[in-house]
Amino acid sequence: MNPIDRLTEAFEKFPGIGPRQARRFVQYLLSAAPNLRADMAEQIKALGANTSQCTECYRWFVGKSGLCAVCGNSSRDAATLFVIEKDADIDNVERSGYKGRYFVLGGTIPLGSEEPVKHIRLRELKKRIAENGLTEIILGLSATTEGDHTRQLLQETLKDTGLTISSLGRGLSTGSELEYADPDTIASALNSRN
Amino acid sequence: MNPIDRLTEAFEKFPGIGPRQARRFVQYLLSAAPNLRADMAEQIKALGANTSQCTECYRWFVGKSGLCAVCGNSSRDAATLFVIEKDADIDNVERSGYKGRYFVLGGTIPLGSEEPVKHIRLRELKKRIAENGLTEIILGLSATTEGDHTRQLLQETLKDTGLTISSLGRGLSTGSELEYADPDTIASALNSRN
Amino acid sequence: MNPIDRLTEAFEKFPGIGPRQARRFVQYLLSAAPNLRADMAEQIKALGANTSQCTECYRWFVGKSGLCAVCGNSSRDAATLFVIEKDADIDNVERSGYKGRYFVLGGTIPLGSEEPVKHIRLRELKKRIAENGLTEIILGLSATTEGDHTRQLLQETLKDTGLTISSLGRGLSTGSELEYADPDTIASALNSRN
Amino acid sequence: MNPIDRLTEAFEKFPGIGPRQARRFVQYLLSAAPNLRADMAEQIKALGANTSQCTECYRWFVGKSGLCAVCGNSSRDAATLFVIEKDADIDNVERSGYKGRYFVLGGTIPLGSEEPVKHIRLRELKKRIAENGLTEIILGLSATTEGDHTRQLLQETLKDTGLTISSLGRGLSTGSELEYADPDTIASALNSRN
Repeated sequence: MNPIDRLTEAFEKFPGIGPRQARRFVQYLLSAAPNLRADMAEQIKALGANTSQCTECYRWFVGKSGLCAVCGNSSRDAATLFVIEKDADIDNVERSGYKGRYFVLGGTIPLGSEEPVKHIRLRELKKRIAENGLTEIILGLSATTEGDHTRQLLQETLKDTGLTISSLGRGLSTGSELEYADPDTIASALNSRN
Repeated sequence: MNPIDRLTEAFEKFPGIGPRQARRFVQYLLSAAPNLRADMAEQIKALGANTSQCTECYRWFVGKSGLCAVCGNSSRDAATLFVIEKDADIDNVERSGYKGRYFVLGGTIPLGSEEPVKHIRLRELKKRIAENGLTEIILGLSATTEGDHTRQLLQETLKDTGLTISSLGRGLSTGSELEYADPDTIASALNSRN
Repeated sequence: MNPIDRLTEAFEKFPGIGPRQARRFVQYLLSAAPNLRADMAEQIKALGANTSQCTECYRWFVGKSGLCAVCGNSSRDAATLFVIEKDADIDNVERSGYKGRYFVLGGTIPLGSEEPVKHIRLRELKKRIAENGLTEIILGLSATTEGDHTRQLLQETLKDTGLTISSLGRGLSTGSELEYADPDTIASALNSRN
Repeated sequence: MNPIDRLTEAFEKFPGIGPRQARRFVQYLLSAAPNLRADMAEQIKALGANTSQCTECYRWFVGKSGLCAVCGNSSRDAATLFVIEKDADIDNVERSGYKGRYFVLGGTIPLGSEEPVKHIRLRELKKRIAENGLTEIILGLSATTEGDHTRQLLQETLKDTGLTISSLGRGLSTGSELEYADPDTIASALNSRN
């Protein structure tokens, strides 16, 4: 395969990028100045050298090693662990005012998978939970079939830890109207009425 | 104003219809057979004669008078009253498996309104609640600013009834992902975690 | 069928309206004041009485009989006839600055139809063309398969009239970029380059 | 600025990419295997080494030097030169069946720019036109204000070359209906009727 097609294929693996846009990326780089390409190549290669994966929550952050800004912040509530799918979820949850800790699961488990461990950081999560000080695990998975499947497996796996295992509430999301809500969401909203 | 413009204006008041589509409706009627127009006119005029407003929940239904199919169904749970904004909400809630009764509020209260009674059936609701047999009122308002405003006013108004006043749970709606949820919804989902 | 379902079905035949919106229209009318319904019914029934179909271009207009505003305007170019599919097209063409006459075909011919006359005003068009004073017929059909099919049939049918038969130019529409244009449009734009 | 933010900023300059997606790209790379990053960095850096800019049409292609596949293909019509804005346009025009040559302008001229030469390859185009064998220049610019502005400047600049200077036809694009076409497109379609 030629260099243009090979790089196009690499960009096609980027999240949300199709063949057409991948090709435009390559065109953009082709017509860019050589030193922009050199800079970018350097940055991508150096990404590993200047960033670290937090040893506690497994998110990526800028720094030599150790703990990320949240895990290293002793003023945050150490009793609550918010289990999320991916790094990007953290930014969003932070905006909601949550003040506890996080654990990045690294994905969800596809239906029918016989090796859940291959898709999520289950061993790392168990190890994290075994540490002292936690009282509650909040499962913050997507409200999708695969998210539900993963949540059920985690609930089953963690039920003997003695910790409170909770899941995010389901119901009407902000801005939604009853007339357009799906029956499943209405049923959840009825169940969680308060 | 000429007949075409006048009817266009009438269609513009239909829910979700703008000037362009209103005009297309008139064109459709203009080029339709005269007896289609006559039929349609007859049906619109007769709508009041062949339909009634349920004396208990205030929804419109086909029939001479009295109770609608839900209110007249003695096998439904008579202890729970689901307060909704409009007739169309009922179809959707029915699909969720709810088995109690309904009350159609007829709208929401605009922020700053000094006469709430003009916008919703508050007197009728109080009268309905005064009847025997109810134990819980579920407030099923839209998760919008105006819906919240209306919900708060109702909670205040009904707090001395001795009944349980609940509201639909807020949280992640079915199908949504944490990364794209708004902070307000995440905060609600955290509050209603279970 | 009951009155609500019957009227819902009637609204479903309106251009661009699905079952859900049709039902909302009926709800809107149900909860409207009886005299709004009576007024609307009156207007729909009276549509035929106060409007006429232009005897020359076949569009519908407000008036007792005779010619519409364009056909009755002697200052417009009487030599050019713009053949369009439906009344609503006229408003749009007028905004482009066209100063000639119109003829409303009333539709397009489905592929494979054995009776084209059932779908468009072919006889009326021939009669209109037989009148004195025309030098050019502009076929203003949609750039779709069915529009092309209709255009070809009209070109064939009208080729012996001795008039210039032209069609709207194909090419890049205002605002479009070459990168996103479909190959067919680019081929047309190349053919009609000037 | 830290490595994550710096790479995010670099991705934000990619065509069609906003801050949110740029961040997801970085997350994707962060959680990718180090050798995927190394590979990608290598490919981006090597892009210049393994690709060349065609000396005749200025598009980028895979090869050591010289002419691209179209310019080096002696069976293509050497008399017609299709002037386009960017490399990606060529793929699309090829699908339309065009069999002549290309010239990549490299952009369009912003309104009010006092140095057009800075935005497009004007000198290179003049040099290319000065070569023997051309009879027609087709200006294939976007049907936008900036595209029109560039086209007018080129028409002015090239009018003394003795060559036919044509522009892509404007009109209804394939699939469009008269009712929804903008007045400008209808006016063009009337002008280019045939």
